Amino acid sequence: MPKNLNGVTCSSFRSCIGLIKDQINETIETIDEKAVKALIDVILDADKIFVMGAGRSGLVAKAFAMRLMHLGFNVYVAGETTTPAVEKGDLVIAISGSGETLNIANMARVAKSRGVLIGSVTSVPSSTLGKLSDVILEVRGRFDRKYVGGEDYTERQIKGEYRSLTPLGTVFEVLSLVVLDAVIAELMAVIGASEEDLKARHAVLE
Amino acid sequence: MPKNLNGVTCSSFRSCIGLIKDQINETIETIDEKAVKALIDVILDADKIFVMGAGRSGLVAKAFAMRLMHLGFNVYVAGETTTPAVEKGDLVIAISGSGETLNIANMARVAKSRGVLIGSVTSVPSSTLGKLSDVILEVRGRFDRKYVGGEDYTERQIKGEYRSLTPLGTVFEVLSLVVLDAVIAELMAVIGASEEDLKARHAVLE
Amino acid sequence: MPKNLNGVTCSSFRSCIGLIKDQINETIETIDEKAVKALIDVILDADKIFVMGAGRSGLVAKAFAMRLMHLGFNVYVAGETTTPAVEKGDLVIAISGSGETLNIANMARVAKSRGVLIGSVTSVPSSTLGKLSDVILEVRGRFDRKYVGGEDYTERQIKGEYRSLTPLGTVFEVLSLVVLDAVIAELMAVIGASEEDLKARHAVLE
Amino acid sequence: MPKNLNGVTCSSFRSCIGLIKDQINETIETIDEKAVKALIDVILDADKIFVMGAGRSGLVAKAFAMRLMHLGFNVYVAGETTTPAVEKGDLVIAISGSGETLNIANMARVAKSRGVLIGSVTSVPSSTLGKLSDVILEVRGRFDRKYVGGEDYTERQIKGEYRSLTPLGTVFEVLSLVVLDAVIAELMAVIGASEEDLKARHAVLE
Repeated sequence: MPKNLNGVTCSSFRSCIGLIKDQINETIETIDEKAVKALIDVILDADKIFVMGAGRSGLVAKAFAMRLMHLGFNVYVAGETTTPAVEKGDLVIAISGSGETLNIANMARVAKSRGVLIGSVTSVPSSTLGKLSDVILEVRGRFDRKYVGGEDYTERQIKGEYRSLTPLGTVFEVLSLVVLDAVIAELMAVIGASEEDLKARHAVLE
Repeated sequence: MPKNLNGVTCSSFRSCIGLIKDQINETIETIDEKAVKALIDVILDADKIFVMGAGRSGLVAKAFAMRLMHLGFNVYVAGETTTPAVEKGDLVIAISGSGETLNIANMARVAKSRGVLIGSVTSVPSSTLGKLSDVILEVRGRFDRKYVGGEDYTERQIKGEYRSLTPLGTVFEVLSLVVLDAVIAELMAVIGASEEDLKARHAVLE
Repeated sequence: MPKNLNGVTCSSFRSCIGLIKDQINETIETIDEKAVKALIDVILDADKIFVMGAGRSGLVAKAFAMRLMHLGFNVYVAGETTTPAVEKGDLVIAISGSGETLNIANMARVAKSRGVLIGSVTSVPSSTLGKLSDVILEVRGRFDRKYVGGEDYTERQIKGEYRSLTPLGTVFEVLSLVVLDAVIAELMAVIGASEEDLKARHAVLE
Repeated sequence: MPKNLNGVTCSSFRSCIGLIKDQINETIETIDEKAVKALIDVILDADKIFVMGAGRSGLVAKAFAMRLMHLGFNVYVAGETTTPAVEKGDLVIAISGSGETLNIANMARVAKSRGVLIGSVTSVPSSTLGKLSDVILEVRGRFDRKYVGGEDYTERQIKGEYRSLTPLGTVFEVLSLVVLDAVIAELMAVIGASEEDLKARHAVLE
């Protein structure tokens, strides 16, 4: 049996994954469907879409961008080789749990100053990124103060219950990936795309 | 209401995300804990760890690698700038739902020929990648024939039930991310790492 | 003074950079202008352009792709997030000194089988990649047998003259970058683009 | 013959590449050998080395990092997956022609605040990045006011002579690549590394 770690109750793989599963299940219920529809609307209206995020949030941003490309959207990842300039009429989608990642907030500010719409996926709507955003999709993760079920998340963290499960934001990223995949499913329905359409655009050279 | 899409029952965001959640919940139960322990063992024994995957599986591989780095492991992503040569004593972890992604299978073969251990995360243990692997962590996704609950997955796909939800492998990647995050939680317990240890290694320049 | 290294004559920074400069100057003269024109023709005709290369050649490929994007071409880097499928009418430009890099040759073969034109930048026209190519831009580097001036390159390598200067292909990559920048300059002239046009497309979010 | 473009004299590939070659030859002479030695000293003293740059300068940074890894240095690219935190005793090498790239300057500031040494490769020593730097390797490119040979570079730009040749900084990046490859050659001599040593570390999985 693994060492007892700071009183963490997750003492085996089965209990660890069970706690992650519980968090997914609980948090999914808190997603605001109106925010999802608002995000879908700006996606459908955008000339070009740019996604961005740092660290693991950046990977979720890329996973979302890949699917948007499969759906035929004109989508780019900030910082990749052939990503062009943002222009009025474009949409930037930024993913940041805390909403305070320095370079992400800076790039959102630059984009905003060019008349570009900002959509954000964040746990903190009142963050620097949140304040710059036209559309906010709140995804609860490690940064939210109030946790589902009336109990305070920070309190649970202090008790160590989620400590080894949520290092540096795991839950936020998994949840963002799940939520954005559901956004893709909804988008597919809205534009009438089939899996065959997606397959046709799926990268061959990889 | 969105257009009816090939008889897909997911007609709204809420029902879409509910179906994804169900799949996560059902599939998590099928993870073989012995395979998890075997993967953890080869990770702990490896001199250097290399992760690889194509497309969205590659993003999951990177998310896993980031956490392994936070835990202090000597870990690299195949194809990144400062990734060195694999050598005897190293471990390659390859992520591929089908286990047939050409470049991934080729690189696994090259690594194998150098005496490197191969761990794979795949839906198809009998695939090219699976056959090259010393340790297989099976994660059911779109490629498995038999689905949890006795019903045939392909059949459900044909009925269109999961069609717009699982384009090109969604469920595999989300599940792999969840499972590998639980592997990290377990690894943290085994080596006695705290969230503070992880934070100390978390990238500052991003 | 640095240690004498295998008889390498480059004993100081000044002499090192002087030798690199000499190689650039000599090799530039050997570029076949007809091959450049042929490459420009297929670039102008392509629906979409995909660039690819491994290691430092991959970086040169990206530097070239960035400029093509600035010029308004529909260009992608193989393996990046939003790179779509190759289709008939597209062009793949592969950069490989030896022309034998496994994944690059494999992807060229896949692209070729889909009716896509292959342009290559290589030192070895008779290589696997070269044989798959419709247009070859030969750039002499470490892999060429005959070196400018009648002397055998391998011989000079054996003598150690270029040993520490050309580790794993330096000269090929620098030369490829210079040659492809000149291709861009020529393309700008052909399509009548100005630096202002390029600036307008230059990434803002980086 | 291509359209006459704003009076640019480069009317063919041969003349374009000739002008690039001339710029390389002239500018190489202006590199300060003392700055090279200072950069080599901080590289040899660093615990970990981090390179960074945006756009094409970022590609040059990666090309340099790849070689440093081949030489056995503990080197990382800012923003890549397994790049750890910078700490006191580390070195950051930033590449930016203008020295004003926002995210690069910000990251240099963050690193500086952690007691990390900053080395920069830039055309403008008096820039934001330059002012943050402990070691500056000046590489003349498009941003320098005075050009080799007594003539004002801006003037030559206004005359259009270099216009289509130096879009958004070409010359700076080519020169930086050449100069940093010569730094590698010098480093090889200093530490007594052979091409065989480099080959042993060259990526196998790519």
